[in-house]
Amino acid sequence: MNEFEFLDRLRRQTDSRRRCSRLLTAVGDDASVIRESANRDLIVTTDLLVEGVDFYTAATPAHLLGHKALAVSLSDIAAMGARPFWTFLSIGMPRERWEDQFKDEFFEGYLTLADRFGVSLSGGDISETKMGIVIDSIVLGEVDSGAAIKRSGARAGDQIFVTGSLGGAAAGLKLIELGARSVPGAIATGPIQNSDDDQSIQSLLRRQLRPDPRVGWGIVLGEQRLATSMIDLSDGLSSDLHHLCKESNAGALIDASLIPRHDDVKRLCGRRALDPLALALHGGEDFELLFTVAPEDLSRLPKRVDGVPVTRIGEITANAGAINIREQNRIWRLEPGGYEHFTALPS
Amino acid sequence: MNEFEFLDRLRRQTDSRRRCSRLLTAVGDDASVIRESANRDLIVTTDLLVEGVDFYTAATPAHLLGHKALAVSLSDIAAMGARPFWTFLSIGMPRERWEDQFKDEFFEGYLTLADRFGVSLSGGDISETKMGIVIDSIVLGEVDSGAAIKRSGARAGDQIFVTGSLGGAAAGLKLIELGARSVPGAIATGPIQNSDDDQSIQSLLRRQLRPDPRVGWGIVLGEQRLATSMIDLSDGLSSDLHHLCKESNAGALIDASLIPRHDDVKRLCGRRALDPLALALHGGEDFELLFTVAPEDLSRLPKRVDGVPVTRIGEITANAGAINIREQNRIWRLEPGGYEHFTALPS
Repeated sequence: MNEFEFLDRLRRQTDSRRRCSRLLTAVGDDASVIRESANRDLIVTTDLLVEGVDFYTAATPAHLLGHKALAVSLSDIAAMGARPFWTFLSIGMPRERWEDQFKDEFFEGYLTLADRFGVSLSGGDISETKMGIVIDSIVLGEVDSGAAIKRSGARAGDQIFVTGSLGGAAAGLKLIELGARSVPGAIATGPIQNSDDDQSIQSLLRRQLRPDPRVGWGIVLGEQRLATSMIDLSDGLSSDLHHLCKESNAGALIDASLIPRHDDVKRLCGRRALDPLALALHGGEDFELLFTVAPEDLSRLPKRVDGVPVTRIGEITANAGAINIREQNRIWRLEPGGYEHFTALPS
Repeated sequence: MNEFEFLDRLRRQTDSRRRCSRLLTAVGDDASVIRESANRDLIVTTDLLVEGVDFYTAATPAHLLGHKALAVSLSDIAAMGARPFWTFLSIGMPRERWEDQFKDEFFEGYLTLADRFGVSLSGGDISETKMGIVIDSIVLGEVDSGAAIKRSGARAGDQIFVTGSLGGAAAGLKLIELGARSVPGAIATGPIQNSDDDQSIQSLLRRQLRPDPRVGWGIVLGEQRLATSMIDLSDGLSSDLHHLCKESNAGALIDASLIPRHDDVKRLCGRRALDPLALALHGGEDFELLFTVAPEDLSRLPKRVDGVPVTRIGEITANAGAINIREQNRIWRLEPGGYEHFTALPS
């Protein structure tokens, strides 16, 4: 039984055992929806990050780890169309980490991102571990009653959109695996004055190590009720489109030529082991938003929010489970591929 | 810097950075209070449990671990005078644990306790770890606006109470360290028919491995606004009374003869390495409630809730930081001692 099957079963169990009628959505969306009051719903998400599995301290400066731990949860809240308000943080670390600079730098990264979006660190827990760091990042947000955007609302004819560009975070991971390391100045203040390649490499490392959750887009889509369904791109476009279509009991046809590939991936393509289309389709952790819009609402959709553009990449179809991609004159089936499984050109 | 000092500093940091005026209490109480709506406040707690630090799988059957992971968080909610509604669970485990019976038994224990109090498992996260199990248990509850019971509300003259009896959980831990193991039938159906000693031992192991959070007492004290301050006894009476007095800027005088010691600790006393008073004062993890009541409200305090009695053990004094205990004709200073530090008679 894999994680998704287990969560499915747990969802059925909790459905059948459910006593509290105020629970609207259990395990299965990016976050859970709890009925809070007559006019506001509460949204809750938790993300568990484990050293050696979800991150490696050798490749991740502590302040960037703090940033990313919160960013992934903010992305989940955005994917529900909600506005984040509070965060809770449970963190376990070995005694030697407790005594060095790690925790101060970690919290600096975490709190700086929280401040940027007006989110309050409101509690949490700290424990010792015998080996490795473990982080559970919890974010609570709110949305107008009934306005939370689920994965399950996509209907045939809805147009499929993504924010920003895709493949950059996976390219960054690939570069880290090839030995590239983030330069503190470049991370903190923008690209260093160096060769174009170095600038592109630092930009891609930033996409992997310091993702920007699309908080503004999430709020706009939720408040203006523009999206029929939404998910954030954590596993990768091909996987997450499958998740969304499964919950919506629908299919999809996307167009390869429309998929917004990250500029720096295109720039480095050919010289490094990077295939822009494969990375954009199967690379994970871009934390862009994938959402669907009903035809009658297309004219209301903004072109940009907080400077981040949106791109139409295809259409929802009635053929449940059929996720297809058009590439030039050919249509092929898009199989889900997580970021661990993407194929790259040999280096 | 120890954990308490770090949390203090973090609290000051988040206070000074705070943007969101709806946050009422940050790090420092058993749980955090968030202003939710005009007439209800939201209470949130998280508890991180790490294998090899907070529990040992060799001594803890999986279903009891599931029970305890939720029980400690329910106890935090009770300590705020709130009613629990929702739980979220983040759990990391090695691949081999994922494939054996561990996770099913763990969730069975967790969900059975959740059902008992009408609490819904509403979400969470699952991750692989490279070594050991880690659990973050999150519970959300509600209380009437402004009715959350803080640690900081005790005033000189308030009477100090504890629910249930003390020292049983620490005695259970001591017995586990001496090699005692819980008998499944005894845990599941009550004491087995065996010698009186065996019954007492199983009862004490249950206090350690399957604590009963005082959910009913928490709700009654919160809804009837009976307590001026409250904390749950997780670190031990001496430590937790210090925490409460520190937050209230007050002192306390308790009476050794009034402290309700666990019957089975008294029964085994002398024959095992168990000192009932030391265990009751310094033993942790009883998850009873320690609270204070203003003199004018004493007549409204129920004698029992859900069959659990309450005992007056002393009084709050104006002398900030002076935590004293009367034993026969002698008054001595009660130093805080965590459950790891309690002294027991040599065996």
